[in-house]
Amino acid sequence: MKFARIGAPGAEEPVVVHQERLYSLQSLTADIDGAFLGGGGPAKAAAALAAGGLPEVAAEGLRYGAPIARPSAVICIGQNYAAHAAESGAQPPTQPIIFLKTPNTVSGPDDAVAIPRGSTKTDWEVELGVVIGKTASYLESPAAARDHIAGYVTVNDLSERDFQLNVSGGQWSKGKNSAGFCPTGPYLVTADEVDAGNLRLRSWVNGEPRQDSSTADMIFDVETIIHDLSQYLVLEPGDLICTGTPEGVALSGRFPYLKAGDVVEIDIEGLGRQRQEFVA
Amino acid sequence: MKFARIGAPGAEEPVVVHQERLYSLQSLTADIDGAFLGGGGPAKAAAALAAGGLPEVAAEGLRYGAPIARPSAVICIGQNYAAHAAESGAQPPTQPIIFLKTPNTVSGPDDAVAIPRGSTKTDWEVELGVVIGKTASYLESPAAARDHIAGYVTVNDLSERDFQLNVSGGQWSKGKNSAGFCPTGPYLVTADEVDAGNLRLRSWVNGEPRQDSSTADMIFDVETIIHDLSQYLVLEPGDLICTGTPEGVALSGRFPYLKAGDVVEIDIEGLGRQRQEFVA
Repeated sequence: MKFARIGAPGAEEPVVVHQERLYSLQSLTADIDGAFLGGGGPAKAAAALAAGGLPEVAAEGLRYGAPIARPSAVICIGQNYAAHAAESGAQPPTQPIIFLKTPNTVSGPDDAVAIPRGSTKTDWEVELGVVIGKTASYLESPAAARDHIAGYVTVNDLSERDFQLNVSGGQWSKGKNSAGFCPTGPYLVTADEVDAGNLRLRSWVNGEPRQDSSTADMIFDVETIIHDLSQYLVLEPGDLICTGTPEGVALSGRFPYLKAGDVVEIDIEGLGRQRQEFVA
Repeated sequence: MKFARIGAPGAEEPVVVHQERLYSLQSLTADIDGAFLGGGGPAKAAAALAAGGLPEVAAEGLRYGAPIARPSAVICIGQNYAAHAAESGAQPPTQPIIFLKTPNTVSGPDDAVAIPRGSTKTDWEVELGVVIGKTASYLESPAAARDHIAGYVTVNDLSERDFQLNVSGGQWSKGKNSAGFCPTGPYLVTADEVDAGNLRLRSWVNGEPRQDSSTADMIFDVETIIHDLSQYLVLEPGDLICTGTPEGVALSGRFPYLKAGDVVEIDIEGLGRQRQEFVA
């Protein structure tokens, strides 16, 4: 199943995307949130779609929002690709490094993004996002994590490198939470349709290629990450985990940072493409 | 005004506390949340109380929950007292250090807390908590922050020092987010009734004193913190900011870490006292 949320910010309508058509879920749920994902919503949506019970929605010109309602938590994994750790000047980690984004950073995949005031180092990061489908705490093994995954999304973990590295004693959060710094979507694709360990993920700036890697290169795979996180915090349905970015960001020194007027595109195989214009 | 939320976890009823009696707010609001705090709720509650329009609630034996609904974000300031920075082995910061807690860590002030599995270094931190009353983004000055504060709460920013310092590449979040790691309350006291720059804050373990300082010793005061944060992220009504802890925690090496059976009490002048029993 492939879900999306369409319409104006804060007033998005939940839909199923099927054979490039959109079908409203409003008769089943008010939103694609933890209650829907944790309460068997995807199976009910599949049954309703198969029964012809979901009205088609005219999608022409509509905005895509993030395909999930605002999560309770956005948990990010740092330096989870060896080549990106190297370009960041770090050794590959031996345990998953985590940091958090505030949930209000989650925005639509094609929403314009304001360069933060005073920023000289705004940077892109294409990442595989995992959406939790079932409360996870003290999981016994990575294999046990599978049952706790609702699906996958494309995420751009936008970062301001000076704010991240230089003005908060080495804690990264100041550079990860400016408004609109977590474009998510366009689609939430359910776990049964995704081979999360073998997805091509790419980014471009003004049409020029930047990142081009595979989730096969992750140091810690999705199950290992969820198992590890569950030892330290309680994951809830609807929570979003960003699994880290591969090499090819501006922090490497190989590319300029973003400025007003730039257009970033990111794409993950099967999960959909984002396009953000950066504005002052 | 002094607010609280009483009843079972997840089913708390919002009340006003007035002359040691409780008055239900359910005719005015379903919860003490961002919509209530940002929508003039406290003034409406004061008017309704003065008009005798709020029914009294029998409080005998009821549990106090956190006095605010689950926030969108819990933002913490690190090393904001010089003596605590020193006992942590760090220089006093020149800019506020921030890190985040997941909103699901927020719990009642007297709820039992489970020592996390594998923990050998669970530690207490009494902190002045600030609850935001109005969206704050790019504030012009610290003075402009005053208008954005709904009120103040007592917070215990519980921490697992090994998880915080040794298993996440120096990013602190793994040690800050175990279940129940943010006891909050019992009261939310509105800003007009609090001199936030001059509050005694104390903690005890099994009745023995640990921390005993004043918010006057903060390196960055509340207005400076909010002004600084607003340059990097968007603060929303209902968000909780934990302003850092003074010296006297176990990390100093002067006291043992917590174990099952220990009882922690913390108190901030005028904001109320917490008592947590730690369990396996």
